[in-house]
Amino acid sequence: MRLEGEHRRSIARTADGKGARILDQRRLPWEIVWVELRSAADAERAIREMWTRGAPLIGATSAYGFAMALAEDGSDAALDAAYHLLAEARPTAVNLRWALDEVAKAVRPLPAAMRGEAAFARADAICDEDVALNRAIGAHGLQLLRDLHARNPGRTLNILTHCNPGWLATVDYGTATASIYLAQDEGLPVHVWVDETRPRNQGALLTAFELAGHGVPHTVIADNTGGLLMQRGEVDLVIVGTDRVTANGDVCNKIGTYLKALAAHDNGVPFYVALPYTTFDPMTPTGADVPIEERDPDELALLSGPGANGQTTVRVTASPAYNPAFDVTPARLVTGFITERGLIAPAALSS
Amino acid sequence: MRLEGEHRRSIARTADGKGARILDQRRLPWEIVWVELRSAADAERAIREMWTRGAPLIGATSAYGFAMALAEDGSDAALDAAYHLLAEARPTAVNLRWALDEVAKAVRPLPAAMRGEAAFARADAICDEDVALNRAIGAHGLQLLRDLHARNPGRTLNILTHCNPGWLATVDYGTATASIYLAQDEGLPVHVWVDETRPRNQGALLTAFELAGHGVPHTVIADNTGGLLMQRGEVDLVIVGTDRVTANGDVCNKIGTYLKALAAHDNGVPFYVALPYTTFDPMTPTGADVPIEERDPDELALLSGPGANGQTTVRVTASPAYNPAFDVTPARLVTGFITERGLIAPAALSS
Repeated sequence: MRLEGEHRRSIARTADGKGARILDQRRLPWEIVWVELRSAADAERAIREMWTRGAPLIGATSAYGFAMALAEDGSDAALDAAYHLLAEARPTAVNLRWALDEVAKAVRPLPAAMRGEAAFARADAICDEDVALNRAIGAHGLQLLRDLHARNPGRTLNILTHCNPGWLATVDYGTATASIYLAQDEGLPVHVWVDETRPRNQGALLTAFELAGHGVPHTVIADNTGGLLMQRGEVDLVIVGTDRVTANGDVCNKIGTYLKALAAHDNGVPFYVALPYTTFDPMTPTGADVPIEERDPDELALLSGPGANGQTTVRVTASPAYNPAFDVTPARLVTGFITERGLIAPAALSS
Repeated sequence: MRLEGEHRRSIARTADGKGARILDQRRLPWEIVWVELRSAADAERAIREMWTRGAPLIGATSAYGFAMALAEDGSDAALDAAYHLLAEARPTAVNLRWALDEVAKAVRPLPAAMRGEAAFARADAICDEDVALNRAIGAHGLQLLRDLHARNPGRTLNILTHCNPGWLATVDYGTATASIYLAQDEGLPVHVWVDETRPRNQGALLTAFELAGHGVPHTVIADNTGGLLMQRGEVDLVIVGTDRVTANGDVCNKIGTYLKALAAHDNGVPFYVALPYTTFDPMTPTGADVPIEERDPDELALLSGPGANGQTTVRVTASPAYNPAFDVTPARLVTGFITERGLIAPAALSS
């Protein structure tokens, strides 16, 4: 999306075609630093140290890293070494291994000298496919926004979102944000309520940054605030992303999503979940079967930001803290799923 | 309650009886600094600059400040001057004017030389009445906790609370915390989930500090987390305080309370509101009639805490923010009100 006045993807080949440039997302929104990755080792470090994040973007970064290694040395030994190096960068990232397998499949039949170029081509294609996917999700969501706007043409459309289901987690557009960007580009009057998203503040830091870059009007709110706004009629719909939707339509997403779904339901506000169709997990029966990741309590107890003397970390509480990363929103609270194949009602999943 | 191993009130006369000592609550939990107030001007500053906070404690502080002025000079002119000085310290604090009026009523009939002592006596009584009030609220809440514990004697009783309805906002015990302290003193196994309470973090800072001082097991959680804990059966009841309960039983309290009430309702968790009976406002028909205070967005956008180089303020977001202070929990989500007169069902209010 637009950033500093130009359309950018979160990852793209460098001008000479031999590397890839990414944003160092750890510094956002305070500093916009583009980093050039020039080797598989560079890509591995960027993934491991979370300069990049989001499943699709991690996949794309690993694919380019793989291509850089193969352009240097197309031998089977080099291929295996680069595959293993990159696969271990974030061991639980399914999309990372998928992307590496796609590249390996494309290059293994080729002679060593041709593998680098073919790997770059496959990495480019992985990126283009991700962009097309999110654009398709966005197109279906846009129709929803158009319909809502048509009911009340004089009013700004207020959308609430949680965490960062945005272009910074994908190659472009994002999942939940795609329809918002398309609506803004089309001239629909949109405004986004951005949940801060404690404890890691992805909303206040990343989603707000994205929206600002693309010129979408937005306001950051405490995670506590969405209920009041819905009671007052100041939210027209909620759109969130998801990490996994189980067979019965339960939605596993960033902690706090469930509370917004309850408030939306209580106030008759539509609650949508945007996702690629592959995020449906028909093998897991219900949300109760999804293990909830428990993360370092210091993510809650410490907070970093710019202070008078540069970036500083301050303590938020002196007491013990507990930090589960996800919760489960029951299917009964979901109005619909926005996918690249169109809108899907929760009832359609279990039937 | 206990702090540093001793039972303390949040305000008490100094050893010589001529002043009052309070905690500088702005520094909690990072530093425990007791401040001696020696004049009406000291008290006025402590109230205005929010060294003290909470309606009952502000009332008690103003009463002692008034007494200090009258001990110095008991003339009508001095009485009027001190009254006006203190009344303006927080112009919207109803309890502040109530306490000043109580003292004025007690001393006006007396000769000037006797007014100081009488004012101190009335200020002492205001404090003792507040302690008795909260203790009575606590006793009724304690019975609830005993009953819940009796159903499952082997288990720790998990209580979730929001904001700081604690002894730091009153003279002792607090409203919602009173029953927790009494349960702990009685040996019931309690554990408190403390909502961080963004944006001002009263839970993570003040409630957690109070509970730690009294030795009550507790864990700070992001405001997003309570829903997941309730889904998992890890919350036995919710107890919150309130700023105002309208004629129909709607509860005006710190922003985010409504979301917890929704989650409690969705999971069959009892949701109680602890309050002095005077907090019922029969003149306001429903929560929709309560104006919601909108506070400085910087309360959300900036955060202070101890860093490597001492207390530091860091920026949390680079985007515009919105900061309403309260929301309204509909009466239908409230299990009961815990007052000094006993438990009251929401339905009993409107009947």
